[in-house]
Amino acid sequence: MRPVVVIGVGMTKFGKFPDVPVVQLGREATRDAMKDAKVGPRDIQVAYVGNLTESKETGHVSCMAQDTLRGVGIRAIPITRVENACASGSTALREAWIAVGSGLYDIALALGVEKLTGRSGAPLGRVGDNIEGIAGFAPPGVWAMRAQRHMAQYGTTLEQLAMVAVKNRRHAKLNPRSFLPKEVTVEEVRKSPMIAYPLTLFDCCPTTDGAAAAILCSEEVARRYTTKPVYVAAAALQSGTYENLRNIAVNECEKKAAREAYERAGIGPKDLDFAEVHDCFTIAEIVRIENLLLCPEGEGGRWVASGETQLGGKFPINPSGGLLCKGHPIGATGIAQVAEIVWQLRGEAGARQVPNAKAALAHCSGGFIGHDTGASAVIILKR
Amino acid sequence: MRPVVVIGVGMTKFGKFPDVPVVQLGREATRDAMKDAKVGPRDIQVAYVGNLTESKETGHVSCMAQDTLRGVGIRAIPITRVENACASGSTALREAWIAVGSGLYDIALALGVEKLTGRSGAPLGRVGDNIEGIAGFAPPGVWAMRAQRHMAQYGTTLEQLAMVAVKNRRHAKLNPRSFLPKEVTVEEVRKSPMIAYPLTLFDCCPTTDGAAAAILCSEEVARRYTTKPVYVAAAALQSGTYENLRNIAVNECEKKAAREAYERAGIGPKDLDFAEVHDCFTIAEIVRIENLLLCPEGEGGRWVASGETQLGGKFPINPSGGLLCKGHPIGATGIAQVAEIVWQLRGEAGARQVPNAKAALAHCSGGFIGHDTGASAVIILKR
Repeated sequence: MRPVVVIGVGMTKFGKFPDVPVVQLGREATRDAMKDAKVGPRDIQVAYVGNLTESKETGHVSCMAQDTLRGVGIRAIPITRVENACASGSTALREAWIAVGSGLYDIALALGVEKLTGRSGAPLGRVGDNIEGIAGFAPPGVWAMRAQRHMAQYGTTLEQLAMVAVKNRRHAKLNPRSFLPKEVTVEEVRKSPMIAYPLTLFDCCPTTDGAAAAILCSEEVARRYTTKPVYVAAAALQSGTYENLRNIAVNECEKKAAREAYERAGIGPKDLDFAEVHDCFTIAEIVRIENLLLCPEGEGGRWVASGETQLGGKFPINPSGGLLCKGHPIGATGIAQVAEIVWQLRGEAGARQVPNAKAALAHCSGGFIGHDTGASAVIILKR
Repeated sequence: MRPVVVIGVGMTKFGKFPDVPVVQLGREATRDAMKDAKVGPRDIQVAYVGNLTESKETGHVSCMAQDTLRGVGIRAIPITRVENACASGSTALREAWIAVGSGLYDIALALGVEKLTGRSGAPLGRVGDNIEGIAGFAPPGVWAMRAQRHMAQYGTTLEQLAMVAVKNRRHAKLNPRSFLPKEVTVEEVRKSPMIAYPLTLFDCCPTTDGAAAAILCSEEVARRYTTKPVYVAAAALQSGTYENLRNIAVNECEKKAAREAYERAGIGPKDLDFAEVHDCFTIAEIVRIENLLLCPEGEGGRWVASGETQLGGKFPINPSGGLLCKGHPIGATGIAQVAEIVWQLRGEAGARQVPNAKAALAHCSGGFIGHDTGASAVIILKR
């Protein structure tokens, strides 16, 4: 594998756009990324498109992907649609990384796109043929159980959960592409409608639409396009079952993906400046910063409460506002995280800039219901 | 890219198995391939799974893929689900080829699986947001139009169309994994129920379920496992719109994929011994052997009538019986073609053996309705 560089990123604002066609979202993000990279549509040699739910709407998602790219002049190249549940975007980026790293292609596009509003039925359906999925057990219920387990086992409090939302809302206020621009207090989080005890509405990410894109290329080609290269130091993926089923607040798959990413990147948690973490629920951020080895097991809640993970703190988590404020347009999320990191590492993050950031981590996990099937993607980027 | 070798292949019998869970089909093919390769489940380092329609049934197809592989002991590795409509299986194989070729992994699994019987609704749905898809224009209608165009433009006859079915049925009789074991005559093909003029029932591939798997590894690792390595000389993919929309019997995307594969493999059409071609309809085989540059444009029908493309002829097409006799369990088809080629190149194809075959081509195309979106995959294998 040769070194791979991100030379351009783009994303739509995330929000509720029931009347905007899915292809239009994907085109906007792709155009944005091409403009950022200063490449034209004919420079793109291969594309990977992450999307989960579109098959329920338009049949063949690969055809939607081709149609999207044709609309911005990208045609007559290999286009592959990938899916890994909530990690579909990260998976698209990873495949683009491998395609360029292999030497087969010099310039690749990774696009993630998802439209969740204005759709028929429950967008996420049931997850797999496991007993939880068949019983209709949905993500809020699973994460409510994880929250209760974490509280019982490690002493995490309701206030600590709420503080994740408070922090990410504060970050989101500084991000024009975020969906929820208003700050909230711990009290407001606790008083918002109960979804699945102890998780309230503000403990859960909203339903939004959006797209994000990244353009990857070889180190040599990158020199032609940018003086601020951002390297993909690692893009690790782990899937499937792991041993630790005793404690649903610990995810061995996420741990393994993190360890693999750190090893490949030659960059440990202490060398990172911040992280974009899959905070689909407040408890998810707490559990995952532990699984990603950013803090010790059981300490996630107390770390958030310490203030160290907010902008201006020692190690900001989700400076973009995270899923809690951008929502989670599934295929787009993992690439939007990468876009945020690229802007930060280039010093272009404006009011939410992490000072002098040199390396950061993006994490998405997909499909973990009942802990038996799922995928975790950990991407490390560095200047 | 370093050289990549197929060390094992496997497939289920293709047929109508409405009561067999999709995961069971995938597991059977994977076990079969592991046994053939003499590798254990813990030797597999990365997996790509091709499937189109399962999202309508079980939600997240990636979770179905993980569940499938967990059932045969493959766990805690990266698993990525890919989709490229009818070329989903070929795409899975191509991604496995890139993953091993990149040096990132030494042993990869490509699995394709699809269950089309016993499902609710039309399995293939509509294709994209184009006018044909919205109007409910389905593949038999599209291919009927191509047949009429081909007949008008090149003088192809109804008998020549039927002779594709006659030939492939004759081949299928020699393939225990095929679905239709009975020979037919030209008269029987023409007298079978009309589907879309001029295509009759026997001009169309049946609806079946099935799975196929291949295990790919680096050349160095292959030496440990086999004395009969089969090399992936090229796995080309081309997607999206192409210029030639004047003649729906010509597909520039397929031509471009073929040219790219020949160039990368350093193997031209004349160096091949046979081909497995995407014969979803009799006319599809005729059109595609032209697009793949195996015979001149417009000559496909006459070439079939010459007898040269049957077993024992100069250049057998679809010695396995093709989709016309195996059916087209979408995700499985492209990898089943590769399995047939591997058996042939190893001299293990029994009664349907192509004598001393050294190199062959597999072709799948997906999603071409109205010619505006679609993908073509061309894989060349050699001893």
